[in-house]
Amino acid sequence: MEFSKEEKEILFSILKSRRDVRGNRFLSSPIKKEELHTILEAALHAPSVGYSQPWKFVVIEDTTTKEKIYQNFVEENQKAKEIFQNKTYDALKLEGIKEAPINIAVLYDKPKKTTLGMTSQAKMGEYSVVCAVQNMWLMARALNIGIGWVSILDEKKVLELLGHEDKKLIAYLCVGYVKEFLNEPELKTLGWEKQKELDKVVEFINYEK
Amino acid sequence: MEFSKEEKEILFSILKSRRDVRGNRFLSSPIKKEELHTILEAALHAPSVGYSQPWKFVVIEDTTTKEKIYQNFVEENQKAKEIFQNKTYDALKLEGIKEAPINIAVLYDKPKKTTLGMTSQAKMGEYSVVCAVQNMWLMARALNIGIGWVSILDEKKVLELLGHEDKKLIAYLCVGYVKEFLNEPELKTLGWEKQKELDKVVEFINYEK
Repeated sequence: MEFSKEEKEILFSILKSRRDVRGNRFLSSPIKKEELHTILEAALHAPSVGYSQPWKFVVIEDTTTKEKIYQNFVEENQKAKEIFQNKTYDALKLEGIKEAPINIAVLYDKPKKTTLGMTSQAKMGEYSVVCAVQNMWLMARALNIGIGWVSILDEKKVLELLGHEDKKLIAYLCVGYVKEFLNEPELKTLGWEKQKELDKVVEFINYEK
Repeated sequence: MEFSKEEKEILFSILKSRRDVRGNRFLSSPIKKEELHTILEAALHAPSVGYSQPWKFVVIEDTTTKEKIYQNFVEENQKAKEIFQNKTYDALKLEGIKEAPINIAVLYDKPKKTTLGMTSQAKMGEYSVVCAVQNMWLMARALNIGIGWVSILDEKKVLELLGHEDKKLIAYLCVGYVKEFLNEPELKTLGWEKQKELDKVVEFINYEK
């Protein structure tokens, strides 16, 4: 299959307009079942080391579970606030756990047997699951659904809460329709970090053409 | 920006037809400079924890460097062969280091200061770079360019070879135009692993709708 210039432009536009969505922008309307299905299907098309597909998705709508996860966020964010000691940080809304109609915990389910491609770099299993998360994020954006990745959580406690102590937490995602997608990353707008230009992060070893 | 059903279908089609390309399918023709640029630009639009953009891309065209990396692959793959003791494994072509016109080492350049979103999960920095790799892979596919991720390499030795001992190797990519994109993952076709169905990897906590 050969893609056209127009199709490439559409991909670029999806990549560029994907955002990390926080609670203050989620709508509470439920996600359509077929759209959730499409997002999960997108994950299954991610590359995986040795075709191991070492992923597991836990879809959470349950208010009680979300509340417990949220409490863990509050605790962990309190520690972060003490580290940063910064008013801008304190004012940031950094999750949408309760506002988003669903949360999805994306887990790494380590293969029982030796996996092709993992003999030199064991981390490849986890990285495969990260690729699946990025596929989900892009597919959600194409469906005009927002995703926010919450990383201010204690991995061990989240796994215990979900009854998956034997796995690894790769991503905790808040998923929902949104009021708006911001034009650029919020932390860029706020001046928290500057954008890095391409020539600052690329190095060529003898590249000519 | 609102995406249409047609645009969503195009993304799905790119996700589905992305392949891990090995040496026996690369063409030697050089990658157009503007296409390489587009692939790298796609990486910069990846999500990154705390907008830290902790990535570094080393573009390698140099034959000598490729040859050294290839030698490391041979060594590491010899160890893998001893682990698997399997004729199917021995017959697999698992890299395209020398056949692909360029290789790109994607590195994690750990931020010097404490990063927003990394206070509870330090791994988030590396994961951001993995998301960038997936963006590159998809953009390459939309440009009808193949990428193969070689993980049978000793991370430390690769970093030494590239003069980046202070960073982490996230991905070593072989990049080039291709003879063909296979219809499905080669390891699926060969029966190395079976495809996992969605209902086997998804669990719902009280999801109704």
